[in-house]
Amino acid sequence: MPPLTRFSVQPLSTMTRRLADVASGRRDPDLVIGDARVLSTYSERILPAREIWISGGRIAAVKPAGSHRGGAARYDARGGILAPGLVDPHIHIESSMVTACAYAEAALLNGTTTIFCDSHEIGNVMDVAGVEAMLEDARHAPLSIFLTVPSTVPATSPELETAGGDLTPGKIAALFDAWPEAVALGEKMDFVPVAMGDERAHAILAAALSRGRPVSGHVYGREFVAAYAASGVTDTHEAIDREIADDLLEAGIWLFLRGGPPTTAWHSLPHAIRTITELGASHKRVAVCTDDRDADDLLFFGLDWVVREAVKAGMTPEQAWSMGSLHGATRFGMEGEIGGLGGGRRADLVLLSDDLAPISTWYGGELVVDQRTITPVLEETLSRPYRYPDAAYSTVKLPKGLKLTPDLPTETVIAHTIRTELPGIMLGHVPVVLEPANDWQTHFDRHGLCFVAVVERHGKSDGNVGHGLLGNFSLKRGAVASSVGHDSHNIIVAGASEADMQVALEAIAAVQGGVCVVMDGVVTAMVELPVAGLLSDKRVHVVADAVKRLKIEWDKAGCTIPYMGFNLIPLSVIPEIRITDKGNVLVPQMALQPLFEPA
Amino acid sequence: MPPLTRFSVQPLSTMTRRLADVASGRRDPDLVIGDARVLSTYSERILPAREIWISGGRIAAVKPAGSHRGGAARYDARGGILAPGLVDPHIHIESSMVTACAYAEAALLNGTTTIFCDSHEIGNVMDVAGVEAMLEDARHAPLSIFLTVPSTVPATSPELETAGGDLTPGKIAALFDAWPEAVALGEKMDFVPVAMGDERAHAILAAALSRGRPVSGHVYGREFVAAYAASGVTDTHEAIDREIADDLLEAGIWLFLRGGPPTTAWHSLPHAIRTITELGASHKRVAVCTDDRDADDLLFFGLDWVVREAVKAGMTPEQAWSMGSLHGATRFGMEGEIGGLGGGRRADLVLLSDDLAPISTWYGGELVVDQRTITPVLEETLSRPYRYPDAAYSTVKLPKGLKLTPDLPTETVIAHTIRTELPGIMLGHVPVVLEPANDWQTHFDRHGLCFVAVVERHGKSDGNVGHGLLGNFSLKRGAVASSVGHDSHNIIVAGASEADMQVALEAIAAVQGGVCVVMDGVVTAMVELPVAGLLSDKRVHVVADAVKRLKIEWDKAGCTIPYMGFNLIPLSVIPEIRITDKGNVLVPQMALQPLFEPA
Repeated sequence: MPPLTRFSVQPLSTMTRRLADVASGRRDPDLVIGDARVLSTYSERILPAREIWISGGRIAAVKPAGSHRGGAARYDARGGILAPGLVDPHIHIESSMVTACAYAEAALLNGTTTIFCDSHEIGNVMDVAGVEAMLEDARHAPLSIFLTVPSTVPATSPELETAGGDLTPGKIAALFDAWPEAVALGEKMDFVPVAMGDERAHAILAAALSRGRPVSGHVYGREFVAAYAASGVTDTHEAIDREIADDLLEAGIWLFLRGGPPTTAWHSLPHAIRTITELGASHKRVAVCTDDRDADDLLFFGLDWVVREAVKAGMTPEQAWSMGSLHGATRFGMEGEIGGLGGGRRADLVLLSDDLAPISTWYGGELVVDQRTITPVLEETLSRPYRYPDAAYSTVKLPKGLKLTPDLPTETVIAHTIRTELPGIMLGHVPVVLEPANDWQTHFDRHGLCFVAVVERHGKSDGNVGHGLLGNFSLKRGAVASSVGHDSHNIIVAGASEADMQVALEAIAAVQGGVCVVMDGVVTAMVELPVAGLLSDKRVHVVADAVKRLKIEWDKAGCTIPYMGFNLIPLSVIPEIRITDKGNVLVPQMALQPLFEPA
Repeated sequence: MPPLTRFSVQPLSTMTRRLADVASGRRDPDLVIGDARVLSTYSERILPAREIWISGGRIAAVKPAGSHRGGAARYDARGGILAPGLVDPHIHIESSMVTACAYAEAALLNGTTTIFCDSHEIGNVMDVAGVEAMLEDARHAPLSIFLTVPSTVPATSPELETAGGDLTPGKIAALFDAWPEAVALGEKMDFVPVAMGDERAHAILAAALSRGRPVSGHVYGREFVAAYAASGVTDTHEAIDREIADDLLEAGIWLFLRGGPPTTAWHSLPHAIRTITELGASHKRVAVCTDDRDADDLLFFGLDWVVREAVKAGMTPEQAWSMGSLHGATRFGMEGEIGGLGGGRRADLVLLSDDLAPISTWYGGELVVDQRTITPVLEETLSRPYRYPDAAYSTVKLPKGLKLTPDLPTETVIAHTIRTELPGIMLGHVPVVLEPANDWQTHFDRHGLCFVAVVERHGKSDGNVGHGLLGNFSLKRGAVASSVGHDSHNIIVAGASEADMQVALEAIAAVQGGVCVVMDGVVTAMVELPVAGLLSDKRVHVVADAVKRLKIEWDKAGCTIPYMGFNLIPLSVIPEIRITDKGNVLVPQMALQPLFEPA
């Protein structure tokens, strides 16, 4: 049995005669899914008593139930709702620490059949080679995966941090020209430089726009919206309230409402959707997306869950499902292929309960999830995933003998400490006066601090280590570490002692990447991420289980913010202070800040 | 002053820094249109108290009224409604018997700034050369004109008629590859062969689909919708009632509601729109279009009028204007460039009265219509139109001594006559028994007949003339003739005598094409159409005046159906009977039918 991929369905241009024959009744379909209601994303109605005729992995016709009397395999939908597979218009696969092949399993269980991913994490580690490896991974996955080409790698500049990747305008142009699945420019995160007219940022925009590719965005602050839209950005998923959501829509920007686990700051949908439910805007240019998911959240907070959140917020089920399928497809010019149950489209379908919970999924006409269980066809494909090239398995390059903690000050100093805050995105800049003491523990007890270090791991320096002090993190023993330190993905280590920090660093180096917890010299939990130091090469449930165990040990160690927030501590584009392999970075000033200053 | 064309505005990819500068207030706009309400096609609301900043022919920002305090030209909208220029997703310029350059004047007066035209008439006369000449014409016009490549040339086959053009799949593919404005495949009129799986029809579909170009359609009959959609067709403008409109929407086909002069059969909008107003379908995949217009109707029944008809039929003004602008743009993947007042878009704007009547129009930021009057900028461009190549001026190629009327039968025969019926689209097949008589006038008086002939004019035969008899046309004296005999555009002549028919034919040949009326050997009205025998090369009001004079003489001559209906008499794809240069064609059988049979 050949593996099931996007390419298992032939292009429509080669199939029109066959489909016309089936639709006209001159040839039997391969499959009839009968006794269904159909959720029409085109008209936003639920149509009673239909059946769908499928041939060669495409929809030949939607007919009144009972129309087909010839031969064909049959599936009895038992009066359930048939809807198009979901289309996620903005995600980062790497956030889930799995490969594209592994991600597909969770997506299909949740009724998602197409995703638009921005692989900027692997781009930050491995440059073009990483992006291309993930594209190969995507081509082997039983899921339609399109690329929005990473646009902002590195996130800042070599003065402030050492990244593995540097995606220049020329490299981005070459990716567009080489890969048909590169359908848009990804999340242009540096919205301030864009608004200010930065030359490189606009050269990257031009690489996309001159090729007719749309540009995806990321913007905070109503004052930036006009300049951002004028720069050619036509979608964003970062609207955090109804006012900026309204501004974005009016500026001609498609709105992707992001649903995240409800306890997180990422769950902005309930706020932004009020441009529709309270301010009366049309929903026709509004979609929903997931953006980022922990591996263990993938199954529980999929795009289907986000659609249901939109219903909770006041949309009809028909509108909400359209926002989860047709609207994203339309935004990317693919509504002739996906997003609805029209003739000629891919037979990417999902059978739903009345409360929009996916029961069964067809991908390109193949039943891949039946009654919430993956089928042998899917199992077979998932058992033979793409293997990343060897270079992807050796991206953690550390010299020996690195020192992870700063020298104990012998005079009174002002220490520029980093204060963590829930939910884990913003970080406070807190200068603390340190009187001379006998040991670090005295300072830690007095000020609620621990060590933090960022270790350059791309083999691009002679062993850069940025030393810092972390406040309010509540790690009183042991250490935690991660090779997923955004966006340069150097290794971030926090700990109460040099010894445990060294154990954590060595544990990560030994498996070429991961996230771990160390207590008294022993690794108590580890999620191994050998691919680019970002991804596991295991199945999604294996990674999800490892993440769950990690979270238990993480909480036991007392860490105040979750590991996803911890991973953001080096992300030197979010206020107020961050730490990279070059040391503390003051974000508003975009400048390095020595850890200690004379008092 | 350089002429104003689509290319007067530079690509967005080259302008993002400039526009970001303007939107951020670091650079003055070229023009501020102030004190306006803004009709948002994105949110479908009217926003109070706005101003629009324009730079380099593009929209830099929409801001609260009074925001800009620096230097810039200003236009006071006096509280009027500013809306995006209209986008007509389906028209045939040739129907108006004017060039693209001339068409632009009427379009801009009506607030239309973009059209998608299917130049199948000139394709039928001049093959690829005609399509390409019209593309050059379009490039010189002060209007954004995109091509939906003619898909069904000839309409039938060389067995049934002699056409000037034969657009094979290979030629169509070459047009797509050569011309960036060839954005879609045009109206695939042969919906029965498409549904039946005809090889050439599907090869033409594949030429478009394999290049990622969408396919425009034309379908009658609910029984054909499924196979037509399965063949990859994704729009149509021929929905004549709410039921087929509903079927089309559900099959994934964009619906273009056609408004025509209200007394004609082309005005199907009020019927088809009931899928929205009565059956509850969303309007998000519905646009409006004009399709065909007599030159003299261009100014009175523009797309703005169609939008107002949609309001009459129950849409809100905001929804209706969106259906006239953004939705067509979205269907063709151009919503980042036109169809709304978002940042970075072309500054194609129209100032409206409260009842949606266009007052002023800006094309690429240039004021081209001010208070319903064309401006000097536009006048200058219109005074220097594109001139078609010489070959386009010599397409009427007739041998001498053609006989336009059949021999008088000397025995009793059955004559297969063609009965005209209002509104002029359908034609009846009426066999009539002709007893021997002394002259044709006896038959004409007895049966209400006159002569009709179709004369091959492409120089492809040795002087093919199809002879026929027309019933119910009420032409008792003189003759009428036209070189716009659809779709092969041979010359159709009807008359009461060979002599007047010869005068009409010679009059048309003398000016290389036209439509005329002859009475007692004298040409009483003539619209000269020297370009491909289809188009005048004069300004639109000149042609409109000539058409008005023609219509007066046409009515005086007593002709029962208007000249547009007369032009359809050779269109051998509409039931029941037609006449081509090969003679009578029975449409349901797709077979020639000799005029006379033994009784």
